[in-house]
This record gives sequence, C-alpha cells and structure tokens, in this order.
Amino acid sequence: MEHATGHGDILARLEATIAQRRLGDPAASYVAKLNAKGIAKIAQKVGEEGTETVIAALTGDRAELVGEAADLIFHLMVLLSAKDVPLAEVLAELQRREGISGIAEKASRSE
Amino acid sequence: MEHATGHGDILARLEATIAQRRLGDPAASYVAKLNAKGIAKIAQKVGEEGTETVIAALTGDRAELVGEAADLIFHLMVLLSAKDVPLAEVLAELQRREGISGIAEKASRSE
Amino acid sequence: MEHATGHGDILARLEATIAQRRLGDPAASYVAKLNAKGIAKIAQKVGEEGTETVIAALTGDRAELVGEAADLIFHLMVLLSAKDVPLAEVLAELQRREGISGIAEKASRSE
Amino acid sequence: MEHATGHGDILARLEATIAQRRLGDPAASYVAKLNAKGIAKIAQKVGEEGTETVIAALTGDRAELVGEAADLIFHLMVLLSAKDVPLAEVLAELQRREGISGIAEKASRSE
Repeated sequence: MEHATGHGDILARLEATIAQRRLGDPAASYVAKLNAKGIAKIAQKVGEEGTETVIAALTGDRAELVGEAADLIFHLMVLLSAKDVPLAEVLAELQRREGISGIAEKASRSE
Repeated sequence: MEHATGHGDILARLEATIAQRRLGDPAASYVAKLNAKGIAKIAQKVGEEGTETVIAALTGDRAELVGEAADLIFHLMVLLSAKDVPLAEVLAELQRREGISGIAEKASRSE
Repeated sequence: MEHATGHGDILARLEATIAQRRLGDPAASYVAKLNAKGIAKIAQKVGEEGTETVIAALTGDRAELVGEAADLIFHLMVLLSAKDVPLAEVLAELQRREGISGIAEKASRSE
Repeated sequence: MEHATGHGDILARLEATIAQRRLGDPAASYVAKLNAKGIAKIAQKVGEEGTETVIAALTGDRAELVGEAADLIFHLMVLLSAKDVPLAEVLAELQRREGISGIAEKASRSE
C-alpha cells in the first residue's frame, strides 16, 4: 500500500461512508441495519469481533487475523459514529498517550 | 484535528513506536512488557479492551468511550505488530470491503 | 467428587456466601469490593473471565481451563446476585431448554 | 425451584445430555454441530455469550439476563465437555476457593 493513498485516507473515507449510510435504508445497508437495531447491538458486534480477533491471533492464519482485525475496526467505527464521536478524537487520545513514553506510559495506565 | 497531521500520520507513527519498543526492555516499556508475556497475554488485552469499549458505549460518558476505543486500537496494534502484520494490510482489507457497498456488502458478511 | 456433596450443594453454598458478603466491608471481602464498584465493573469481570476462558481453552493446559471456568462461574454468580437474580432461575431456564431436544433445540436458538 | 430437583440435578443431567449429543449427528443436534466445528468455534460462542451477558446486565431486563446467563453456562459446559473436563472439577475448584474467605480470598486472586 502506498503512503499516497495511506492509512488516513482509507479511514477518513470509511468514516464518511459509515456516516452517510447510518441513517439509510436498513434493507439496503448493513450499517443502517445495525443502527436501526440500536447501540446495544452495535456494541455487541464490537465485543464479538474482539473475541474473534483473539481467536484468530491464537489459532488462525494471517488472513484470518487480517479479516478479524478489519471487522473489529469497522464495527468500532460504526459504534463511534452511532455515538457521534469522530475517529479524530480517538486518534488524538492515542497521540496524547504516545507522548508519554517508556515506563511513564506504563505508569499512566490503570493496571 | 487537522488533516495535515491526520489519521494516517498518527497511526503510522504509533505503529513505528510499537515496532521499536517491542523488543526493548520490559522494565522500561509497556509494549515490551506485553510482548515478553507472549501472544496469549496480548490477545487477552484486546479482548478486555473490547469488553471495556462495550461497557463505555452503554454506560459511560464520551471521554470514557474515547479512552476505551483508544485502548482497543492501541492493543490491537500491539497484537498486529507481535504477529508481524502491518496495519496497512488490515486497512487494505477495509478498503477492499468498502468497494462492496449497500446490500451487497451485507451479503458478503458471514451472518 | 461424590454426589452426596454434589454440584448443587457447592453452588447453593457459594450463592449464600456471595449474598452474605455482598454488602460487607469492601476492605475485607472481594465480593463486597466488586459490589461497591457497581454493576458495570462486575459485568466487566464477567466479560474478562469469558475472554480468559476462551484463551485457556485454546492455548492453556487443563488446570488453566479449570481455573478460568471457575472464575467465570464465580463472577457470573456475583453479577446475578448483584441483580437479585437467583441462580435457580437461570438453571430453570436451562432445564426448560433441555426439554427442547435435538434439531428442535437448535431451531429455537436465534442463530 | 425446589431443592429436591435442585441445582446439581439440572447441571448433572445437562452435562450427561451434552456428553451424549456431542458425537451425534450435526444435522440433528446443536451440540454435535458445535463440536463438529471444533474447539475454536465453541470457545467463540463462550466469548460471545459472555459479551451478551454483560450487555443484558447493563441494558436488558431480568428475562434477558436470565436467558444470556443460561446461554453462557450452556456453552461453557459444551466447551468443558469438548475438552473432557467434568464440571465437578470446576466446582471443586470453586469449593476450594470458597474456603479462602474474606480478604485472604482477595489476596489469592491474581489482580
């Protein structure tokens, strides 16, 4: 994958697509169908894809892990969209933490 | 967040940081510590953060959801790094699916 | 394990112990501490133990699976207690379904 | 529910039913169908039911929580059966821990 059509472009376009489909016809769009079912159902999908990513990492091949990780990110973005949280806010939080490096980063986690 | 320092830049830099810390001193880096514990422990963190994201979406405020989503993406990236899967492969899979729109997209899912 | 001190006795005693400790001193009891943190935290533990049971089944030895399954049942019982749901209600539901056998049982599931 | 047809009887009978169906015709039994798909698929169901129990506890009514908790116990028992672990071993572990009371119990947990 070239950097020219890089990470940000794909995620930004996916976020726009999800926002556009969100209030569409549940019979014509998976995103609209999930939103019609409500937040609990969308959250459930995030939990399920988290479990499937765990299983793919432990027992699956590379293609399975790639597919499950894509499913997890996709459903997380559907959830964020349904809660009106831009992905940029989540990435800004990741960036903020990235500045807290090494052992300091570790100490700032609630473990 | 400006597009100039956009999604892709943050994720690319985070991916590089994780790759660099991965084989570092477990006493000095949270990423190194997780990798020293092995894939099962890293996968467990992805599963836990998935659950915490579900709970934040259902009962938490906006800041909690942002924090848990950031935790989930972070640990997913640590898992992908530990399995030598570039984030670009996952995003390419997302991009491939994005081309399958509407009801066709839905039909292509294994539900 | 003898039937004389069988499954039901252990679970009934555990349920009574959890009910008794539930409103106790959080500094003196793990059950009281969890309840003091609220339903979301107890539910989170159930989700985490579910993930750990998955991982133990896929990568662990017999003792790890036994330990994680025990943790899962224990935290599920703490959750049911916190929601004032007797284990007997859950077992009655299992018994009801058991009467729906074979392919009929399968058809009654929402998959 | 009467103690005469108590917890242990229901679980013991369910365990026997699962053991009997496990190697049956996947077209005629849900348990046989799950076993035919393998341990990863059975474990995935445990993870999913864990997530659904979390969601039912946080957003559902009493009947939903009872139903999801029953699903979780059922799939956990299918997993234990598939791994040749008698439920009695898990309950013995719960009993062993029950003897470790109060703050001592807490200290013995890996948190």
